[in-house]
Amino acid sequence: MPKRVPLTYAASGVDVGIRAQALAALLGGVRYRPPPDHGRPVDLAGHFAGLVRLGRETVALTTDTVGTKVLLAEELRRWEEVGEDIVGVNVNDLAAVGARPAALVDTILCARPDDGVFAGIGRGLDRGLRRAGCALVGGETAVVPDLVSGFDLGGTALGFFPRGRRPVTGERIRPGDVILGIPSTGFHANGYTLVRRLLREESVDLDQPRPGGRGPVGLELLRPTRIYSDAADAIADRPEVHGLVHLSGGGVRNFVRLQSDVEFRLDAWPEPPGLFGWVQALGPLSDHEMFGTFNMGIGFAVVVSARGAGEVLRRLARAGARDAQRIGRVAPGRGVSLPGRSLAYAGYA
Amino acid sequence: MPKRVPLTYAASGVDVGIRAQALAALLGGVRYRPPPDHGRPVDLAGHFAGLVRLGRETVALTTDTVGTKVLLAEELRRWEEVGEDIVGVNVNDLAAVGARPAALVDTILCARPDDGVFAGIGRGLDRGLRRAGCALVGGETAVVPDLVSGFDLGGTALGFFPRGRRPVTGERIRPGDVILGIPSTGFHANGYTLVRRLLREESVDLDQPRPGGRGPVGLELLRPTRIYSDAADAIADRPEVHGLVHLSGGGVRNFVRLQSDVEFRLDAWPEPPGLFGWVQALGPLSDHEMFGTFNMGIGFAVVVSARGAGEVLRRLARAGARDAQRIGRVAPGRGVSLPGRSLAYAGYA
Repeated sequence: MPKRVPLTYAASGVDVGIRAQALAALLGGVRYRPPPDHGRPVDLAGHFAGLVRLGRETVALTTDTVGTKVLLAEELRRWEEVGEDIVGVNVNDLAAVGARPAALVDTILCARPDDGVFAGIGRGLDRGLRRAGCALVGGETAVVPDLVSGFDLGGTALGFFPRGRRPVTGERIRPGDVILGIPSTGFHANGYTLVRRLLREESVDLDQPRPGGRGPVGLELLRPTRIYSDAADAIADRPEVHGLVHLSGGGVRNFVRLQSDVEFRLDAWPEPPGLFGWVQALGPLSDHEMFGTFNMGIGFAVVVSARGAGEVLRRLARAGARDAQRIGRVAPGRGVSLPGRSLAYAGYA
Repeated sequence: MPKRVPLTYAASGVDVGIRAQALAALLGGVRYRPPPDHGRPVDLAGHFAGLVRLGRETVALTTDTVGTKVLLAEELRRWEEVGEDIVGVNVNDLAAVGARPAALVDTILCARPDDGVFAGIGRGLDRGLRRAGCALVGGETAVVPDLVSGFDLGGTALGFFPRGRRPVTGERIRPGDVILGIPSTGFHANGYTLVRRLLREESVDLDQPRPGGRGPVGLELLRPTRIYSDAADAIADRPEVHGLVHLSGGGVRNFVRLQSDVEFRLDAWPEPPGLFGWVQALGPLSDHEMFGTFNMGIGFAVVVSARGAGEVLRRLARAGARDAQRIGRVAPGRGVSLPGRSLAYAGYA
């Protein structure tokens, strides 16, 4: 195998810098703010969910797609996992503001509807909705053969704040806070354009296990996004919880979405599961690229006062996250760092 | 030109029967209903929006995409119109349950972000949000070159019911009610896979006016979806308003989504604008196909008690819909009919 320059997410066709610039061009045109009798948006630019005050309630709205992970599903002819991902990618963004999921609408774009595919997606949706405690209240199925090849799966989730709960925004994060992490179940639904390119270039057989892995590596890569709704719901009322992070696309850089004038120092990051190291070696990809693109084994994080950390860990365990652990702390400074690997990130995008 | 069998929407690649069957396969798998402390979905299967009771408020959620109209935008290199459509296709579904728009999230899938395109979409979004009285509170931009060619534009809108207003569901519709219609601005954002196929087959020059038309026919076809939010908001509190219909994909068949055990008798449908007749002749398409696929000049309808019709027309006029007019009535029976054209439709899909 010839020696190669390390790959990047940008080189695989997804340049987050270009995307950020285009998004700025779009948002530059959107100046309208509605009158207060049309609801009051809560300004949380760049956060995981949009918040709106409606009458006597505050609701949270978030939208996301499963992205190119569906192409892996297509290759393996398995649709339950990505059906479940429609729920996971959305409710985890609600969890990151402390909102409890209430309703989901799905959007399926396809070149041609297929009963078997749709039935599999339905079973996966059901499993995800059950895990999140969320109802499906509608959806859109668009047959657009001129626009998409195969399938695109996305959705929008609506959450709310039970009586007495306030949105968790990160504004109360301060140096000295402790950072707890909850493990992921793999790549969730982020970075698959890059992962798939590596699989293709190295002619990986998806039906075989990777070295050290159990079961076909295709199935390992297809595992659905872990759903953190119950975990977040169990702690979002506690005043010692200062911030919640969903480590989606952008990996550890997601911490910066909570607050930009502290340093998130991830000094106790656990060794990432073997799947991540195996993908990294396929590239090879740099540590900087890996931690700035993928969740690297931790899919959700909680920023909590040092005094409150023990109680929050106990509550997380009772809500099904016995594997939550301390992964770092908040320090004076800016950005995100992993001192053990000499990594630092200044911003999110 | 050789004589041809009349075209159908199905023959253009969009078979709504196959879609309905796949959708049934998906929904067959979704059995979960969340516990009441996760919000209470209001069962309105097949209606225009999903409703959820959250604490002391009821909210409405609806999701839709602009579909293949974006391909026309791409050809004409104009993005403001379809940007505005993202708002229109969604808030008009909110209007059909009497909900006032509060918030929108947009979803842009693209092969490659482009500043100029995104800036145009942003200007269009702003115009639509202004017309609807709606805030943009978030969005998703996915760069998925392996999934889409060009751009896909969609969104999800969240609406609510101002204090004292109840959702308008159609359950109170009864024989004797009057049907009022508000004109559309063209094809809105439905049926463009078929329209574009006709344009292509007949090698239509989009830069020229059609016979009898003003301005390039491409621009005529690109006109943004009329937004009915203010009109619906002005009448949704009135008890004499029994039903509201957004004539999106499926044309007049959308009436059946309100109630299946009355006949919607459209005995005063106005002559459709010339653009519709011109497209019909390109096929040629049958009247049955046209009225069951496109809005045919009426984009929104109100079902109102006979006694209340005058007052509702006055309120619509004050809210900017001076062009609202009587288009039919509700009779005992089932389905939708246009007696003047000997057309009848049994169901929606």
